Amino acid sequence: MYTQLPSALQGLQLPLRIRLWDGQQFEFGAEPRVTILVKDPTLMAELARPSLDLFGSAFVEGRLELEGSLSEAVQIGDQLTQAFGHFAQDDDDGKRTAHDRSLDATSISYHYDLSNAFYQLWLDREMVYSCAYFKTGQESLEQAQQDKFHHLCRKLRLQPGDYLLDVGCGWGGLARFAAREYGAQVFGITLSREQLALARERVEAQGLQDQVELQLLDYRDLPQDGRFDKVVSVGMFEHVGHANLPLYTRCLFGAVKEGGLVMNHGITARHSDSRPVERGAGTFIHRYVFPNGELPHLAMISAHLSDAGLEIVDVESLRLHYARTLEQWSERLEAHLDEAKALIGEHSLRIWRLYLAGCAYAFARGWINLHQVLAVRPLADGSHHLPLTRADLYRC
Amino acid sequence: MYTQLPSALQGLQLPLRIRLWDGQQFEFGAEPRVTILVKDPTLMAELARPSLDLFGSAFVEGRLELEGSLSEAVQIGDQLTQAFGHFAQDDDDGKRTAHDRSLDATSISYHYDLSNAFYQLWLDREMVYSCAYFKTGQESLEQAQQDKFHHLCRKLRLQPGDYLLDVGCGWGGLARFAAREYGAQVFGITLSREQLALARERVEAQGLQDQVELQLLDYRDLPQDGRFDKVVSVGMFEHVGHANLPLYTRCLFGAVKEGGLVMNHGITARHSDSRPVERGAGTFIHRYVFPNGELPHLAMISAHLSDAGLEIVDVESLRLHYARTLEQWSERLEAHLDEAKALIGEHSLRIWRLYLAGCAYAFARGWINLHQVLAVRPLADGSHHLPLTRADLYRC
Repeated sequence: MYTQLPSALQGLQLPLRIRLWDGQQFEFGAEPRVTILVKDPTLMAELARPSLDLFGSAFVEGRLELEGSLSEAVQIGDQLTQAFGHFAQDDDDGKRTAHDRSLDATSISYHYDLSNAFYQLWLDREMVYSCAYFKTGQESLEQAQQDKFHHLCRKLRLQPGDYLLDVGCGWGGLARFAAREYGAQVFGITLSREQLALARERVEAQGLQDQVELQLLDYRDLPQDGRFDKVVSVGMFEHVGHANLPLYTRCLFGAVKEGGLVMNHGITARHSDSRPVERGAGTFIHRYVFPNGELPHLAMISAHLSDAGLEIVDVESLRLHYARTLEQWSERLEAHLDEAKALIGEHSLRIWRLYLAGCAYAFARGWINLHQVLAVRPLADGSHHLPLTRADLYRC
Repeated sequence: MYTQLPSALQGLQLPLRIRLWDGQQFEFGAEPRVTILVKDPTLMAELARPSLDLFGSAFVEGRLELEGSLSEAVQIGDQLTQAFGHFAQDDDDGKRTAHDRSLDATSISYHYDLSNAFYQLWLDREMVYSCAYFKTGQESLEQAQQDKFHHLCRKLRLQPGDYLLDVGCGWGGLARFAAREYGAQVFGITLSREQLALARERVEAQGLQDQVELQLLDYRDLPQDGRFDKVVSVGMFEHVGHANLPLYTRCLFGAVKEGGLVMNHGITARHSDSRPVERGAGTFIHRYVFPNGELPHLAMISAHLSDAGLEIVDVESLRLHYARTLEQWSERLEAHLDEAKALIGEHSLRIWRLYLAGCAYAFARGWINLHQVLAVRPLADGSHHLPLTRADLYRC
C-alpha cells in the first residue's frame, strides 16, 4: 500500500526528504539537506497532531532517524509543526512536583552527574555550563566564558577580600575565577557529587585551597547570618521550583550582609502567564533533560527578590548570547559523537544532541530568555553604595 | 490643665520642639531644629495613632505648623511615627477607581494643569518633571536633566530620522531634545492642556515645528499600525491604573514597529504584594497629590510588557537619583515660597511642599523606586538588532 502523507504537508517547500520504513521517499524541495527517516509505521498516525515534543521523543526512542545538520533538522521540524497549524499541548507544563531536598538532589544528579568526561567534550576548558558573553560576536567560546565571568564579577563590584557565595557552583569555574582574578574568598555549593569532585580537584591543582571552599549543600542549609559580602547564582533558580522561590530568595537575603549584592543569572520564561511553551517543546525538556525544572518569568523572580527584601537595581537580557553559546556547544558535541556515545550511551546522547540544538533554536526564536538580575540588600537606612551609573562595568 | 504628651514620646531624643496652642512647649533634645506647632487641640487625641498621612493632612489643613527645614521635619515625623510602634493603615491603598478616558483626563488635569508658572519656579529650564540622572553626583539639576535625556536616547539607540513616540510628553523637554540633539521626528501626547500650550510655544520658539508634533491625546487613541521606530514613556505608567496596564502595554506594542524599542521610565512600588505603603504615607499622595495614581511593582510592569509581546532587555534602578532630584526641587521651592503662594494659594502650596520633601525621603528610604525598563518588539523571526552589550551607552 502506498502511504499518504498528511495533507498539511502537501505543497510545503522545505529542504527536506522524508524516507519511510519501506523505502518510499517524499521530497519537499529541490535540494534536500535534511532527511527524516521514519522507522516506525505507527508514527504516521501520531504525526497528524505534531509537536516538537513528538519529534523529539520519537528521535530519542529511535522511532525516527535524522540525517543532515541537527540544528537544521530542528528548524525544519518547527516549520513542519507550524504547517499543521494546530499543535499538541505541552501537557506536562502545568504539572508540578513539590520540590524538597530529596527531589532536588535526584533531579540535579540526573542531569549533572551524567559524566564529567562527556561535558568536557563540548564545554570550554573551565567547563562553564551557562550562557557566555560575546562582547563583539567574534570571540571564541573560551574567551566569551571568561568575559562572562568578568561581567558577573564587575556587576557584583567584587573586591579583594570579598566573601562571595556561589549558589550552584557547578564545576567551580566562576569560584576559581573570582578567587584568582578578583582576590575573593569563595564559598560554593552544589548538589552534584560529580561536579564537586572535579571542581575540588581543580581548586587543588590551581593552589586555590585557601581561597575557595566547595561543599555539597542544599540552598536551604545556607548560613543565614549575613556573612557574605556578595552572592552569585548562575543557572540555579530554574531548578528551585516556583513554589519554593520565596524560600530561595529569603535564603539569599539571609546569607548576604546589609549593603551586599546578589546576582541571579538564569533562564526565564517568555510570558508571565501559564501559556504552554511554543510548539510543545517544553515536555521534551521536562521528560528527558531537566526533570522538575521550572522556568520563572522575569516578573516572578523579580517579585520574590523584592518581597524577600532585595532591591532590583539592574537587569540585562543575554538571550541572543545564549543562542550563540548553545550553537557552539551543539557543534562541538556533533564533532565528537563517537566519543560521546562511548561515554553516555546512545539513548542519552540522542537526548543531549537534540536538547542542545533545540535550545539554541528556542533562544534564537525568543521562546525562552536569559536574564541577569542584580539586586542589593539595602542598608538599614534604605540606601546602598552602588555607583550612580553602570559606566564602571564598561571601564570608561 | 496641663496637657500630657502620648507616653510613647517620652524619653525620645530628637532635635524637636513641640509647641501647643496654649504656649506649652516640650523639647526632645538639647538643640531643637524643628518645631511642630499644634494649633488644634483635637489633634492631640489623633496623634495617639499617628501616621505620616495624619501629620501631612494636619499640615495641609493648617491644624499644625512646621518651623525649620521641611525635609528635616519629614524625617522627624517619620521617627515620631516609628516611636509609636503601630501605625494607622493606609486605608485608601486598596481602593481603586476604574480608569477611563474621563477619569484620567480629570486626574491629569488636577496635577499638571495647576500652574505652569508655579512649576517653572522650581523645575529646571526645560521643565523636566521626572527623575534626573546624576553621573557623578556633582552635576547641577539642569545638567542632570540633560544627561537623563541623553541616557534615554542612548538606551533607545535613537538615530537621525527615527520616528519617536513620546507618551506623556509633559512640557515637551524630551521631545525637543530628541529632535534637536538626535535628529528624531517626534510625536508627543499629553492630557494636560497647560502642558501642551507651553510645550507647543517652546517648539515654535526653537523652530522645531517640522520635527515635533504634540497633541492632546489619550494613549488609548494611539495609532496601532506600528508606525513608530521607538517609543518613550516617562512618568506615565503610574497614572494608568493596574487594571489598565494590559491595555496600555498592548497600545505601546501596537504603536511600535517590529524590531523597535520601547522605554518605560517610572516610579515603582517596593513590594509586589499589596502591603500598605510604609508609615501610611500613601493616603496623603492619593488624596492630595496624585488622585487615582497607582504604582505598579517592577514585576507587574514587566509581566504586562512581556505578555503584550515586548521583550525586556534592560532594567535600571535610579532610585537614589530621584531622591537627589526631589531634594533639589524641594530646596528650590522652599526658596520661592512667597511667589509660589501667590501663584497657587496657601492650601496647594502646603500640599506641594510636603509632597516634594516627603517623596525625597521616601526614595531615599527605599519605600518607592524608579525603574527604567527597556523592551524590544522582536522581529518576526524572534531576533532583534540591539548591540550585544550596553557598552555603547557609556561610549567606550
